[in-house]
Amino acid sequence: VTQRVLVTGAGGFIGRPAVAELVRRGFEVHAVSRSEPPQPAAHEVTWHAVDLLDAAARGRLVAGVRASHLLHLAWYAEPGAFWNARENAAWVAASIGLVDEFARAGGARAALAGTCAEYDWEAPQPLSEDAPLSPSTYYGTCKDATRRVVEGLAERSGVSLAWGRIFFLYGPREDERRLVASVARALAAGERAQTSAGTQRRDFLHVDDVAAAFAAILASSVEGPVNVASGESVTVRSIAERLADAADRRNLLDVGPLPDRAGDPAEICADVARLRDEVRFTPAWSLADGLADAARWWADQPATR
Amino acid sequence: VTQRVLVTGAGGFIGRPAVAELVRRGFEVHAVSRSEPPQPAAHEVTWHAVDLLDAAARGRLVAGVRASHLLHLAWYAEPGAFWNARENAAWVAASIGLVDEFARAGGARAALAGTCAEYDWEAPQPLSEDAPLSPSTYYGTCKDATRRVVEGLAERSGVSLAWGRIFFLYGPREDERRLVASVARALAAGERAQTSAGTQRRDFLHVDDVAAAFAAILASSVEGPVNVASGESVTVRSIAERLADAADRRNLLDVGPLPDRAGDPAEICADVARLRDEVRFTPAWSLADGLADAARWWADQPATR
Repeated sequence: VTQRVLVTGAGGFIGRPAVAELVRRGFEVHAVSRSEPPQPAAHEVTWHAVDLLDAAARGRLVAGVRASHLLHLAWYAEPGAFWNARENAAWVAASIGLVDEFARAGGARAALAGTCAEYDWEAPQPLSEDAPLSPSTYYGTCKDATRRVVEGLAERSGVSLAWGRIFFLYGPREDERRLVASVARALAAGERAQTSAGTQRRDFLHVDDVAAAFAAILASSVEGPVNVASGESVTVRSIAERLADAADRRNLLDVGPLPDRAGDPAEICADVARLRDEVRFTPAWSLADGLADAARWWADQPATR
Repeated sequence: VTQRVLVTGAGGFIGRPAVAELVRRGFEVHAVSRSEPPQPAAHEVTWHAVDLLDAAARGRLVAGVRASHLLHLAWYAEPGAFWNARENAAWVAASIGLVDEFARAGGARAALAGTCAEYDWEAPQPLSEDAPLSPSTYYGTCKDATRRVVEGLAERSGVSLAWGRIFFLYGPREDERRLVASVARALAAGERAQTSAGTQRRDFLHVDDVAAAFAAILASSVEGPVNVASGESVTVRSIAERLADAADRRNLLDVGPLPDRAGDPAEICADVARLRDEVRFTPAWSLADGLADAARWWADQPATR
């Protein structure tokens, strides 16, 4: 029996490789994005241009597709702004509505994108899924509230639901206002790349692995929160240095001049035991190879500045 | 300047006295209920029959009324069932949407109904607003999630928002499947009224006082959670006994045969310092007079069984 999956945020950073991975796994993929599908669009995929914040349009889409599986990646994601924007609230409502409608349309299995920002970042590292929750951003608050509601909703409506908490990520097509992309783009363009001292440690995963992890989670029967991360933290400084080495542009890297973000925690690292042992997922990319892949992708782009 | 208030759940148990109280305070009242207004409808009130779960209809209503104030009491309230029903999820989404739309329509001040079920009921009593939150019901989880999201949303959209945590209540027109009403109705009808041992202590407030407290909160500038309660807990047994005394039917009261609810906490009592000292609200009804009022109301009803 072919399994039909509805993928939201399908034109986004994680959504594009997730769609590819779900096609590879044999799913019949229905992909949703606000506007036109990314080009070239794979012919195996049915694209739907729907604004998920429009409840009526969303309801019609879900009732029409009648998917057995749901991968919900869409959210407000404007770089920088998303951490504290009011738009997060509308995505809580839309996500609850989506799961409710998916259940009513006969859906059986859902995976939704959560975030490491749900955790108390001051808790001991690495963070396992039962670490204390205490979001320090409105984004984290809204994702955490969504999980609390949709887990109970799924339980009451016959849907098996997993919640993938994404840590830090990078890779081809990343918005160039985000950390890794901004450094990789600058270096590829032969510009100086400035960073902060970068002593804070973060857990980074290549976007293809994030996407593949979500596909693996969706295809499994694991329920509840699952960290989606590498399980290793590295300094932001070393990320920048590896990008510079991959681009052979160490001379253009200027570590130190930018200020640290106030209140930025010293380390954010995932315990990935659930992802590894229950979902049985292992990343394909090492950090070194992954960063080289990102550097290569930026080197292949026509200069944008 | 006349202040215009949109009241949801206006035909409900708390909504009806709340509408009356807001009229008394000089508000121009726009009242929303799913169906027709309760009869007799006060001529000072504009009634709107709107299903708040219908996002498009809700959006049109809010944009059309352009209220300065919002009193949001509507929620799924089927006696017994509401504690763990999936319908709670849809009310989270509708409540977030309502506050978002109210802010966009120029709204300035909102009060929303929360619940004592947001608290960890095992925490030391009485419960102040900063007591630990750990809902043991899906209703509590959904109210708690709503508060987390709408407080941040209000902050980001120029709305001053208060969250009234309702404890236990009783009074005229209560659904007869609920505790006080079921006992009062049976005694008024000359039937035997059976209860559990009733040793658990609860904080009860007359519904007119709950409604007046919400009107006072809305008219104040107090923000965040505020307990809406009496500040005194009494045993459920003594509530039944006072009702029997008020009806002069002590002989019909049978305390003990019904089982206690599993896991029912020994005491749930509010610290009402915020309501008393910041909102400056004091209940009008004593428990004895309030229960006599409820008993009288049931005695005046035509027999329903």
